[in-house]
Amino acid sequence: MTYTLVLLRHGESEWNAKNLFTGWVDVPLNDKGRAEGVRAGELLRDAGVLPDVVHTSLLRRAINTAATALDGADRHWIPVRRSWRLNERHYGALQGKNKKETLDAYGEEQFMLWRRSFDVPPPPLDDDSEFSQAGLPQYADLGADLPRTECLKDVIVRFLPYWESAIVPDLQAGQTVLVAAHGNSLRALVKHLDGISDEDIAGLNIPTGMPLVYELDESLQPTVKGGRYLDPEAAAAAAAAVANQGR
Amino acid sequence: MTYTLVLLRHGESEWNAKNLFTGWVDVPLNDKGRAEGVRAGELLRDAGVLPDVVHTSLLRRAINTAATALDGADRHWIPVRRSWRLNERHYGALQGKNKKETLDAYGEEQFMLWRRSFDVPPPPLDDDSEFSQAGLPQYADLGADLPRTECLKDVIVRFLPYWESAIVPDLQAGQTVLVAAHGNSLRALVKHLDGISDEDIAGLNIPTGMPLVYELDESLQPTVKGGRYLDPEAAAAAAAAVANQGR
Repeated sequence: MTYTLVLLRHGESEWNAKNLFTGWVDVPLNDKGRAEGVRAGELLRDAGVLPDVVHTSLLRRAINTAATALDGADRHWIPVRRSWRLNERHYGALQGKNKKETLDAYGEEQFMLWRRSFDVPPPPLDDDSEFSQAGLPQYADLGADLPRTECLKDVIVRFLPYWESAIVPDLQAGQTVLVAAHGNSLRALVKHLDGISDEDIAGLNIPTGMPLVYELDESLQPTVKGGRYLDPEAAAAAAAAVANQGR
Repeated sequence: MTYTLVLLRHGESEWNAKNLFTGWVDVPLNDKGRAEGVRAGELLRDAGVLPDVVHTSLLRRAINTAATALDGADRHWIPVRRSWRLNERHYGALQGKNKKETLDAYGEEQFMLWRRSFDVPPPPLDDDSEFSQAGLPQYADLGADLPRTECLKDVIVRFLPYWESAIVPDLQAGQTVLVAAHGNSLRALVKHLDGISDEDIAGLNIPTGMPLVYELDESLQPTVKGGRYLDPEAAAAAAAAVANQGR
């Protein structure tokens, strides 16, 4: 008896293509991103990996990637759960800023610290910023817990309670679970599943739009570390491209 | 204190445009149908009618119309519930048949009896038909209750338990509820809300893609019979066109 967990990072958004830090800004997919959702659905369907339930963030790029992929795999009708705990890392004052310009302005060391350090968040985003989420109705329940910036460690802290309370019970009920989320919320999950150290997680890049399948044993340990991509060649090429962002 | 209920019939599907009986066949939206979803979202947003929860059928034309409209109204993140009890009427052996050819083959009287009588279902659909839903995973839980044909009365019988057990509690919790469904499942609901007789419901046509807003009092009676369309002129024109299908 194993459990099947499928991770899917949203397809390319309008800001991915413009090389801007996005974080919690609710940017739509672009045409390439929509096509990635279609391709993900074909991969799920052709592999016979058929989700029984989907968990998404509250951000439309994950919501719409999941919807497109599930429609393509004939699984549009499955139950849907959403949580802010699956959102992308909040990028603080970097939200809306160009990655290349940030690199040039602050230098390689500071840039990589903000992008890939485990526990150094960027400066907080002011609530008055056009890129702030303060006051949005979907986050009203968070109150003072609404993040103004996050490091990966912060993402793990707010993600793991949802993993334990919402996703694990679905797995233990024997359901194939799709988690449609973001680069950093999925890194938080993969770090937890594969037992990756705080240092080594910096080197892990998850490509957009590529279903990543984990089979988990009864103690929720992966039967194969790192899982398997349904399209491994495309995933390897895409991960290498992600690592070079901002260059 | 009133409750706000929004009804939305899916946009035009590939088979609406081909004038085929669709029923439970899971046909996608066409370009016009997708545009209707976008327009519905604009109407909701501009009117400030913002759903807190959405209920859909298990059919992709309703699921995708709801998703498009909610995205346009910035409400893509709200909780989603789905049920087969919101599905379109099962059209039995007529599923996949051309409405005009059916009219010509069987004559006006039989045609209108199948289309608009309250309690005369078409002949049942054979499970071996390419248009059958027998064996589909989304209906596996129904077992022997899976319909092979339905009249409007049958739709009411299977819809009302969901109204009482799933939609009414959301309304009573003070939530603005969007029900994204189909011509006949929404007629079942409107008949119930407005107290329309078994005879008069035959004359009621609900246009595609037009948000219909009901304010309900604490005993769930409409404060205005028939509700209000957010775009009343377009709704009147569209309802007239629906009434002429098959002509």
